[in-house]
Amino acid sequence: MEEKGEVKLLGDWPSPFVIRARIALNIKSVDYDYIEQPVPPVSELLLKSNPVYKKIPVLLHHDKPICESLIIVQYIDEFWSSGPSILPSDPYERAIQHFWAAYVDDQWFRSLCRLAKSKGEEAKAAAIEQVKGGLLLLEEAFEKCSKLGKAFFGGDEIGYLDIALGSYLGWLRVNEKMNYLKLLDEAKTPGLAAWAHSFCAHNAVKSVMPEIDRLTEFAKARYGYQEPTLPTK
Amino acid sequence: MEEKGEVKLLGDWPSPFVIRARIALNIKSVDYDYIEQPVPPVSELLLKSNPVYKKIPVLLHHDKPICESLIIVQYIDEFWSSGPSILPSDPYERAIQHFWAAYVDDQWFRSLCRLAKSKGEEAKAAAIEQVKGGLLLLEEAFEKCSKLGKAFFGGDEIGYLDIALGSYLGWLRVNEKMNYLKLLDEAKTPGLAAWAHSFCAHNAVKSVMPEIDRLTEFAKARYGYQEPTLPTK
Repeated sequence: MEEKGEVKLLGDWPSPFVIRARIALNIKSVDYDYIEQPVPPVSELLLKSNPVYKKIPVLLHHDKPICESLIIVQYIDEFWSSGPSILPSDPYERAIQHFWAAYVDDQWFRSLCRLAKSKGEEAKAAAIEQVKGGLLLLEEAFEKCSKLGKAFFGGDEIGYLDIALGSYLGWLRVNEKMNYLKLLDEAKTPGLAAWAHSFCAHNAVKSVMPEIDRLTEFAKARYGYQEPTLPTK
Repeated sequence: MEEKGEVKLLGDWPSPFVIRARIALNIKSVDYDYIEQPVPPVSELLLKSNPVYKKIPVLLHHDKPICESLIIVQYIDEFWSSGPSILPSDPYERAIQHFWAAYVDDQWFRSLCRLAKSKGEEAKAAAIEQVKGGLLLLEEAFEKCSKLGKAFFGGDEIGYLDIALGSYLGWLRVNEKMNYLKLLDEAKTPGLAAWAHSFCAHNAVKSVMPEIDRLTEFAKARYGYQEPTLPTK
């Protein structure tokens, strides 16, 4: 066990990347100091801890900084290796989880950001198509788990890919709410829809997932999201 | 040991990403079938093996596909764990190598691509500045290794970050050649300059690094690189 104060996390509550680190720490039952770092401005501590990107999250372990959310999750898994595993032990299964987690960050979340920023019906429709297409691909990946009777990508418990994708659920819901639509559709992606419910209800997750209303207000204030006009059809 | 034919690599010789997988297989002394996949067109085998990205490299191990170069390198390290280690065993050192490898891909190599595509003096100068700035950051990271008397980022032998950065050396040289300049400067980045020499001379590397002249001709033909006019100052 760590002594109090030896693990610190620099974060900002609306960040999906910070949520990842918090869920991983919760899974391992690691006691940590959470240091809220609303940006801007960048604090001296953040600047010193992550001089390359100047971004949260940063995990400080005995004052040594670890940056980048998925690298932090892997570090937590490896350092506190006696706790429940986050990454599978089999090299092939690990590679598959790394592959889909990278897909979620590099492709799928970018399409969600495009949707959030899109202006005009055509751009919005294209972005919605990309977000939904990505979810269909992830549904296929999930089906392999659920056919084995598993509730999560990681098996019976949440793992690396669950954390990677699940951390975005708050922002997915904000985008659904702001656009009066369902992106995570029970009919087309039934596995993922059930998974999202189980994920958010998990003990390691529920205390760190932001409330959708609060996140929506934050999005409006910080990024200038605007309520669209109500759809007429 | 694997039986002949159980490990296959789908690749294309000019790809830095394919080189990564080949170096990792060489380090572990794994015998493999190399299947050249010049693209386009995308072969049926590649389409079936990597339906999400349809890109090389793909490692086929007992016909199970593993995609994405750094994920392949990590898989090779973990599956053939009795060979020389590619990633360090210490979780913090692993996290540092993952961090810089992600920096190399997400930031530095993109600046090199911007330089290759840049048109006009101003855009070119800005891209050169970014490439050199990134190398200065990597020099700092390397200094920590060389102060410990190590020849490589990975220590006395090449490791994960060496492979991540070293795989781009061919394309770095092509860009130097095409622009009549030194990007990897012995005066400003002496550690990296010496490292690049040691890396390219390493037994696991030298047989898979493309010749610069051949790579330059390929770049001209495939991407329409043009010889710039000789600088007058």
